[in-house]
Amino acid sequence: MKIFESKIVVRYADTDQMGYVYYGKYAEYFEVARVDALKSAGYSYKKVEEEGFMLPVTEYNIKYFKPALYDDEVIVYTSLEMISPVKMQFHHRCFVGENQLNEAKVTLVCIDKQSRKPVPVPDKIKDLFI
Amino acid sequence: MKIFESKIVVRYADTDQMGYVYYGKYAEYFEVARVDALKSAGYSYKKVEEEGFMLPVTEYNIKYFKPALYDDEVIVYTSLEMISPVKMQFHHRCFVGENQLNEAKVTLVCIDKQSRKPVPVPDKIKDLFI
Amino acid sequence: MKIFESKIVVRYADTDQMGYVYYGKYAEYFEVARVDALKSAGYSYKKVEEEGFMLPVTEYNIKYFKPALYDDEVIVYTSLEMISPVKMQFHHRCFVGENQLNEAKVTLVCIDKQSRKPVPVPDKIKDLFI
Amino acid sequence: MKIFESKIVVRYADTDQMGYVYYGKYAEYFEVARVDALKSAGYSYKKVEEEGFMLPVTEYNIKYFKPALYDDEVIVYTSLEMISPVKMQFHHRCFVGENQLNEAKVTLVCIDKQSRKPVPVPDKIKDLFI
Repeated sequence: MKIFESKIVVRYADTDQMGYVYYGKYAEYFEVARVDALKSAGYSYKKVEEEGFMLPVTEYNIKYFKPALYDDEVIVYTSLEMISPVKMQFHHRCFVGENQLNEAKVTLVCIDKQSRKPVPVPDKIKDLFI
Repeated sequence: MKIFESKIVVRYADTDQMGYVYYGKYAEYFEVARVDALKSAGYSYKKVEEEGFMLPVTEYNIKYFKPALYDDEVIVYTSLEMISPVKMQFHHRCFVGENQLNEAKVTLVCIDKQSRKPVPVPDKIKDLFI
Repeated sequence: MKIFESKIVVRYADTDQMGYVYYGKYAEYFEVARVDALKSAGYSYKKVEEEGFMLPVTEYNIKYFKPALYDDEVIVYTSLEMISPVKMQFHHRCFVGENQLNEAKVTLVCIDKQSRKPVPVPDKIKDLFI
Repeated sequence: MKIFESKIVVRYADTDQMGYVYYGKYAEYFEVARVDALKSAGYSYKKVEEEGFMLPVTEYNIKYFKPALYDDEVIVYTSLEMISPVKMQFHHRCFVGENQLNEAKVTLVCIDKQSRKPVPVPDKIKDLFI
């Protein structure tokens, strides 16, 4: 599986009064990482929706090892972990320099934009990650 | 004009590493306050959209006097400041106890949900605030 | 174990262009639910920090069954699932009416606010949930 | 005055169910733009705080002309509009292609990180923008 790399700079708004990035914020970083992966493969999530599909998240698991701090350059590594007819599971890892901050798995289900029912993941999306 | 009152408890996610509520967060508090005002008048913003209108913001001005802190009970006072055929301007003030935190004016324009063009503010919405 | 109940009204800011609450937002709802649980037990997270402790999250797992929509009244049920000398794991379930939206487990580690090192969870915090 | 340019790609989390970027989100875009401006001038807001200062916002005014949409590449133009002994006012304008989305003014006050009292803006910060 291909590994994609995405850089996100921590915004002041992302921090909380512990001085850490708020634990709920990483979901957004991973969204950015998946979108960057689609783009670096010549596609985009915007096109996914324009072609009549949506990819809502059905499961999200994250283990936190170290916090990100304000202005950190966070590198997110993203790869496709598993695939089923209607789902894709992504593996994300955040690093600042050589320090791994966390590890996450995010499962998306492909649904039809009109009916909002599960449909097979289009091959052209799957193929981008393999 | 009627004055509406809304209570918002500061969430941890709202704070930043200064230990203050992030300056961009108050826009959301004022949204909650306007929605609460509509509800206390027996209406709701959800119904506004169901009836085919939307009320996007066209102008937002805020002066900050003191910051809100984690777990503060913020009271937001809301009143209709001005009205034109297609716009409504609201006046918001946040307090914690007797301390005024800020003062804001938010102007909304009434648009048709389909055409996204300005349309007159329905009387039944205007009347709620007067 | 005690089960605590918390009500959260979905804000417009919480929605995304799918018309659903953004998948990353629930982390914040669960924070509110844990804080409400502490308060209903006569304590508060603010006091936890004032007494020199912090409770950052070390693991967060969520399964999504149905999305929350704008203006939904989300009820979050919270209970302590497991406890170890330095960690507490909470179980959260969100409902709108009789529909369960999701199920989550959130593990917090107790650290000293100065040293930022793990320390035993104070009994008076543990006891609130049992 | 120098004009600084910053690029921000709209995240899915930034959108609301109108399909627009939430009106409160731009405050965060302008924070990113000011931080980028400091960095392109060889400085950073992180250093500002490390040197004992903080720059909280005391006033924020924005007029919205057009909404940003998901995945838009928003260009933010930033310049110093006015300066007083303890305050700096910035002028921000967001564009997508040739379409201007909004125009904003943000006033920051320089405070001492310990005392949280206003202090003169250090020359080396002022000089970056002139």
